Amino acid sequence: MSKDKSIGIIGGGSWSTALAKILTDNGHRINWWIRNEDTIRHMHLRHHNKHYLTSVYFDTNLLELSSDLEYIVGASDQLVLSVPSAFLEDALRELPANAFEGKEVISAIKGLVPSTNTLINNYMAERFQVPLDRYFTITGPCHAEEVANEKLSYLTFSGVSPDKAQAIADKFTNSNLQTVVNTDVIGVQLAAVLKNIYALGAGIAHGLEYGDNFLSVFITNCFGEMQTFLKQYETIHAAEEGVESTAHNYSASAYLGDLLVTCYSLHSRNRTFGNMIGKGYSVKAAQLELNMIAEGYYASRCLHEMNREIGAYMPVAQAVYAILWQQLHPTEAFMALEKGFI
Amino acid sequence: MSKDKSIGIIGGGSWSTALAKILTDNGHRINWWIRNEDTIRHMHLRHHNKHYLTSVYFDTNLLELSSDLEYIVGASDQLVLSVPSAFLEDALRELPANAFEGKEVISAIKGLVPSTNTLINNYMAERFQVPLDRYFTITGPCHAEEVANEKLSYLTFSGVSPDKAQAIADKFTNSNLQTVVNTDVIGVQLAAVLKNIYALGAGIAHGLEYGDNFLSVFITNCFGEMQTFLKQYETIHAAEEGVESTAHNYSASAYLGDLLVTCYSLHSRNRTFGNMIGKGYSVKAAQLELNMIAEGYYASRCLHEMNREIGAYMPVAQAVYAILWQQLHPTEAFMALEKGFI
Repeated sequence: MSKDKSIGIIGGGSWSTALAKILTDNGHRINWWIRNEDTIRHMHLRHHNKHYLTSVYFDTNLLELSSDLEYIVGASDQLVLSVPSAFLEDALRELPANAFEGKEVISAIKGLVPSTNTLINNYMAERFQVPLDRYFTITGPCHAEEVANEKLSYLTFSGVSPDKAQAIADKFTNSNLQTVVNTDVIGVQLAAVLKNIYALGAGIAHGLEYGDNFLSVFITNCFGEMQTFLKQYETIHAAEEGVESTAHNYSASAYLGDLLVTCYSLHSRNRTFGNMIGKGYSVKAAQLELNMIAEGYYASRCLHEMNREIGAYMPVAQAVYAILWQQLHPTEAFMALEKGFI
Repeated sequence: MSKDKSIGIIGGGSWSTALAKILTDNGHRINWWIRNEDTIRHMHLRHHNKHYLTSVYFDTNLLELSSDLEYIVGASDQLVLSVPSAFLEDALRELPANAFEGKEVISAIKGLVPSTNTLINNYMAERFQVPLDRYFTITGPCHAEEVANEKLSYLTFSGVSPDKAQAIADKFTNSNLQTVVNTDVIGVQLAAVLKNIYALGAGIAHGLEYGDNFLSVFITNCFGEMQTFLKQYETIHAAEEGVESTAHNYSASAYLGDLLVTCYSLHSRNRTFGNMIGKGYSVKAAQLELNMIAEGYYASRCLHEMNREIGAYMPVAQAVYAILWQQLHPTEAFMALEKGFI
């Protein structure tokens, strides 16, 4: 039996903590970078992350904790990236360009690098020369809180090599965590970005006092739009690379499932933000009130720019963009949308 | 301009009342069969249905109310069927076989004739010789309460002739009610039956204490299963009739939209019934406790029988059937399902 690849986690938030729980529940030793040394000390002493998912107990014999990122990366064959997308560049700033040489990178980040609107795989390729065949993603409808509570959840592991993605997925699979593998490493990332735009839109609809009948029609049409975009993106990029375009099943947890959990969750930041926009708050006022800007806000602009090349018909994403970035009145934007829904 | 076709509604429940509101809001005179004469008297006096959607005011000048079904049918060119499917046979029992000769029948019934497990169009064809080209359906995600509250809702009008379906839809369209037309008159009825089975399953999942992550994956996989069944049904029946099979877009309100609103609604009878089954109640005990049997209960058996011919892979519908009709333990059934979800 070959030696197991050592795995490291980069990030100390709730999603990182959930992933660390899953891996250690399965008996894997993990290297874990957490920026805050006090959090590390507390974890050694009290066996839990004092800031996130505090009920999760860790066997510290399985944890190599360090605030030295270069050390954690150097000690690991596989690195799970799990910092918020907005902090990724900053978190990796000190690392040399060859830090990830020969290593597998597993992105658990949902979103894009905001300064450049790039997908994480493109960022990792440019900054660290991580090739696509050593890049994998973890996506799916997965509240970290439900992982902490050991509610059955599904994660999708994507990679251009399904065998390698499966080997990674196997480390995570257990009785509370089902894993699905696919090869659509770009599509799942795009779906995760799109769902934030649509959840923000669902929030706007709620703020405008549409009801449950409309919400179901809205989400249904968002899903149709998501499929249109992903198919056109796949076709165009396959053509650019001179390979055959692959058909993917979008009625799967990483696409429709994640869209549903995000749009229907009352705790979604995107939905909350959208709700205020629908009630008439400006972006600035909503930001001040909530002390955050939802991911869907930046995602809507990124998608708008990305879609110049793709040219997919995306009236909902376009409406959300126009409301947030071009001061189109939400009522007006939604009245125009209503007519086109099927 | 040709004389407008006169329209009648058969049924006095909440869905009938919502449809009557929509038509009269649009200025159409309607013939309306309500069985209970006291309800009719009250409506003349107080301008509302005393039992359902009591806040809806009616201009009684637009209502020809009668408890004489043969009279109402005779006076109408178009008949909206809107009694619960379980009471349809009984409601139409006295009518002669030629009662619907030359008339258009518009079914707003969601479900099957329970004694024979037949689709409404088949029942109307056998009992009254109503041909498919004079049969239409109204489907979609539409709580009657939201129609009463003038929340924007979507209804899909289906018929083998899209022009005729459009003409009917036009009578209903207004600023609170968007209409969609398609030709999938069989598929929309099947989708409406399937969604009840899946909503009952969602209730079982809730009763078994699965969380939101799982629910989104469950519904996603139900939608995949629904598409598989509808496509195979379409292919087989097209082949039987020697016509070309038509592709339909299932990411539309009559399919996915209706599935979502039914599975996510806490007020759904199917979901409530399923929840008790998940908690360990027997079908009999749940029936006694709730004083009703959910439509999904009968639908699951009907689908099971229908699928002998179709042969679609439907693990969720099969599991719901096995739990309800073959005493398979819900925990066991769901543990088997978990493995197959994507």
